[in-house]
Amino acid sequence: MLIATTTVATRPEADHLASAAIEQHLAVCAQVEGPLHSHFVWEGRKTVAEEWRITFKLLPEHAAGLSAYIHGAHPYDTPQWLVTKVEQVGEKYLSWARAPRSSVNF
Amino acid sequence: MLIATTTVATRPEADHLASAAIEQHLAVCAQVEGPLHSHFVWEGRKTVAEEWRITFKLLPEHAAGLSAYIHGAHPYDTPQWLVTKVEQVGEKYLSWARAPRSSVNF
Amino acid sequence: MLIATTTVATRPEADHLASAAIEQHLAVCAQVEGPLHSHFVWEGRKTVAEEWRITFKLLPEHAAGLSAYIHGAHPYDTPQWLVTKVEQVGEKYLSWARAPRSSVNF
Repeated sequence: MLIATTTVATRPEADHLASAAIEQHLAVCAQVEGPLHSHFVWEGRKTVAEEWRITFKLLPEHAAGLSAYIHGAHPYDTPQWLVTKVEQVGEKYLSWARAPRSSVNF
Repeated sequence: MLIATTTVATRPEADHLASAAIEQHLAVCAQVEGPLHSHFVWEGRKTVAEEWRITFKLLPEHAAGLSAYIHGAHPYDTPQWLVTKVEQVGEKYLSWARAPRSSVNF
Repeated sequence: MLIATTTVATRPEADHLASAAIEQHLAVCAQVEGPLHSHFVWEGRKTVAEEWRITFKLLPEHAAGLSAYIHGAHPYDTPQWLVTKVEQVGEKYLSWARAPRSSVNF
């Protein structure tokens, strides 16, 4: 499995992206947390911004689709998008992640 | 070293698992944070749950023991269990992680 | 890219290290979050401490410099220093991370 993270400026935006990714079956779980205090340089100026992180857990076959969705729907022009590989997954968790999700009731 | 994460529904449950893993020398550090807002599909229904994350830092030789302990003690039937590999560890931190812990006073 | 994490006891200390790493171009983004509840054994005694985490996003060529800076400036004698490898980075985010930062206004 993979873990992908991005950040947005508000919790409602984070919840929206998290929820949409789950509804489209592009991730099996998306966790919203914050506020974070992000330090970075933007357009030549040092900036500190309050942000909320979304951590997506996903199957490798959904990585391209999730990235495309997030890059299209994200409120930022240059969103953080970092994907790390999971070395070991719990057996039951992996079975759950792989179970078909086509008949979900929203 | 490895980093393993799971989530539970309340902070006391998170603190309990974190504390027990340390007492059993199955991890060298366990950090509890939250609340997270977790979005996922459970039994065919879209769900949003408040959860607390535990992040365990451990030596590879303890991965099987920690996984067995957590899967046995975890309040969920299907806990998140994701283990990622650390590429570089600070030298002093690694020495500390490797130091014997048999004579711990609780 | 790489992700490196450390923890300190207070949010001002975390913001200071995050800010200094950005100003020295040793990371492209540093996110401060907390409080965490860290469980570990220190000098033979089980300890629970409130801590704040800093998550640095950086280019591999800055890993040694960032580690040296943090180990020199960190208030702890034995700081957590764990570096993980990112498998996939968003294209625009990577371009932004690689853009020269020499003319930053602070």
